[in-house]
Amino acid sequence: MHETAAINDLDRLTAIFDRISAVGARPGEGVTRLAASAEDGAARAIFAEWMIEGGARIEQDAIGNQFACFDWAGEAAPWVFAGSHLDTQPRGGRFDGAFGVLAAGCAALAMSHDLGTMRFKPACNLAVVNWTNEEGARYQPSLTGSGVFSGALPLERALALRDGVGVELGAALAAIGITGATQNVPPRPKTYVELHVEQGRILNEAGRGIGVVEGTWAARKITASWIGRAAHTGPTPMADRRDALLAAAQGIAGFEAVTAQAYPHLHRSAARLVVEPNSPNVVVERATVWFELRGLDTAELDRAGQAVLALFAKAASDTGTRLEIAADMLRAPAEMDAGLMALVGEAARSAGFEPLIMRSVAGHDAVALQNSGIASALIFVPSVDGIAHHPDEFTHPEDLQAGLSVLESVLRRLVEAPAGQDKKD
Amino acid sequence: MHETAAINDLDRLTAIFDRISAVGARPGEGVTRLAASAEDGAARAIFAEWMIEGGARIEQDAIGNQFACFDWAGEAAPWVFAGSHLDTQPRGGRFDGAFGVLAAGCAALAMSHDLGTMRFKPACNLAVVNWTNEEGARYQPSLTGSGVFSGALPLERALALRDGVGVELGAALAAIGITGATQNVPPRPKTYVELHVEQGRILNEAGRGIGVVEGTWAARKITASWIGRAAHTGPTPMADRRDALLAAAQGIAGFEAVTAQAYPHLHRSAARLVVEPNSPNVVVERATVWFELRGLDTAELDRAGQAVLALFAKAASDTGTRLEIAADMLRAPAEMDAGLMALVGEAARSAGFEPLIMRSVAGHDAVALQNSGIASALIFVPSVDGIAHHPDEFTHPEDLQAGLSVLESVLRRLVEAPAGQDKKD
Repeated sequence: MHETAAINDLDRLTAIFDRISAVGARPGEGVTRLAASAEDGAARAIFAEWMIEGGARIEQDAIGNQFACFDWAGEAAPWVFAGSHLDTQPRGGRFDGAFGVLAAGCAALAMSHDLGTMRFKPACNLAVVNWTNEEGARYQPSLTGSGVFSGALPLERALALRDGVGVELGAALAAIGITGATQNVPPRPKTYVELHVEQGRILNEAGRGIGVVEGTWAARKITASWIGRAAHTGPTPMADRRDALLAAAQGIAGFEAVTAQAYPHLHRSAARLVVEPNSPNVVVERATVWFELRGLDTAELDRAGQAVLALFAKAASDTGTRLEIAADMLRAPAEMDAGLMALVGEAARSAGFEPLIMRSVAGHDAVALQNSGIASALIFVPSVDGIAHHPDEFTHPEDLQAGLSVLESVLRRLVEAPAGQDKKD
Repeated sequence: MHETAAINDLDRLTAIFDRISAVGARPGEGVTRLAASAEDGAARAIFAEWMIEGGARIEQDAIGNQFACFDWAGEAAPWVFAGSHLDTQPRGGRFDGAFGVLAAGCAALAMSHDLGTMRFKPACNLAVVNWTNEEGARYQPSLTGSGVFSGALPLERALALRDGVGVELGAALAAIGITGATQNVPPRPKTYVELHVEQGRILNEAGRGIGVVEGTWAARKITASWIGRAAHTGPTPMADRRDALLAAAQGIAGFEAVTAQAYPHLHRSAARLVVEPNSPNVVVERATVWFELRGLDTAELDRAGQAVLALFAKAASDTGTRLEIAADMLRAPAEMDAGLMALVGEAARSAGFEPLIMRSVAGHDAVALQNSGIASALIFVPSVDGIAHHPDEFTHPEDLQAGLSVLESVLRRLVEAPAGQDKKD
């Protein structure tokens, strides 16, 4: 371990974290730094400037993923990636994503400092990565940048995604100066490591400082539209109405009732609703709802999905509206790389933390990469009370430091290891 | 009657109606001319130019009501007002409102043409009025301009209303050049006459061309917010969630179920819903719904209102959210002026139409004025299939002509009558 370096790292982390946290922040409302917004552009610029000062070159691919490249081992050497995302939810927290990117940056700077000494002999190059639109707040699906990089999402489809007011992701990226890939985007790495706040209470309740993610839950995401007919809310006879908002309300209420009863251990939500025309005096013509079901067992998600689709169809027929399923996507559960898990566990124990092996309910960029065949590790540090996607999200400095120490230790091992010897088997 | 003038009037009406209908129109999407929008500003300018060409002077009060003034009878003479509104719903129809303003303008131009002849001896001045934000689509409550003019709504409160993105009505008016009252806004009139498309199927089904409105239904309008807590839709334990959208959905579904069962003859709707933050991955923190109940009997609306408020509170307690009633307003039923009704009936019969005495479910500016003590008449012409607040809204030219003839005839009688002799008692 590198006690001194790690302490310096925390000061360094705090300085850059404060700068990035200010971008899109409003008092009492947390941070709003939606993907490809002006705020995202500003955060990217600060990140790039900071990494360039530390000796990196900045590259970016066509979906806007940012790579701060440290060419320590020559063109032929393999790459290690570490990072997360700088975009946030609306009124989101400061730690979610940003901590992982900036901690990786700090680790890279600490390693750079040791370059040419006996303490650090790199056999690989390192890129610190900021993935585009991890959150899926402005554009769905989430994990957009890592999905494109890993091959799961075609670039053209990603660039054509539209936000709530119809702006294509490609156009939004262009508006912040991202109009294509730069010349020397690094190739697929041999390994990817991501450090993230937990967004749940498991570490908190277990009193542990470091979590090693062994895998994630699966998610079924269904976007349903009900289409009725606009009409005056006053004189239009009740029998003539085809009310899309009533259908959506029955859909949301029924979704909760059915799944809570038959599948109580699934996590479930309907959190986005778009209503047209959304005037108090016009019967709603179209209501679109984003539903999620999350669980470990894809067969169960399949059965639950069938049940809710039937219920949505009933809401349509009961209200004289028409149901359209705009999207119905299963995100398979991921199993993280066992060798990397062991390596992270060992680094944690060396730093004095008994790691907790755990599952993540949420998706993360590390999941997209692992599922594409890039060996990936996901390290968690505790969130106080598990608060996530909320301005009150908080992680204590000592937990940040623990995460940073473990990440740096893991990255040193990975970057120093000759190909084929980077895992603890 | 003035057969020739009426035919000329219809040509004149068609010409100006086509110009106004083009403002805010999109193919297949009807007309979107929200109050105090750029489109509203453009329509106001066309209306003003047209009226000035016809000899009017244009005045406007502090809430943006436009008055095209014909000073036929001198400063001391009483005023007659006729008009409606040029704002529309999002993707609304062309006839709703615009027909009444432009028909009144045509009637004024026809009367002006006869000025100085034996056919027209005015004892009153006439103003053709375009009331601000009748629709209540962009700003609630509806009937804003006529409410301020008639004294029911304080000007300061109206100017401070906010639209869905927080823009105050005063600022929106300023953005289209309306920053206060002009010098010579006409005083409260002795009478107001409004011609409007029915927005229901009663005239259609009765095979009648002219409706004389005797009164309106009452309306109870409740705006309810449920406040929960933002959280990640994935890892947050289900027991910890306080989901405002789930509460709103239960509120909307329950509102329909309870009122359909216990008060089946009330018209009811929930047509506007604002969700925050409205991201697929954040449990909704705040959901606000605009509910309406409409009926003849205010005591019944009171009972139904109590029942739904109880149901809303139950939705809050079932979901761990907090209920806030942001608005709860009763619009009393109006009884229109009996003398004016008789006058309209006589004009209709003279023109060959047996008028149908009927009630309006919807509110109109004439209701706001009548309720403030200004004797007001509301004349309906048929809407095909009762379609309203929809691009397919349509009224046949022969029905427009009938309405225009009756309006002009009524206005001639009112403008020519010395004070105190303008009603048929």
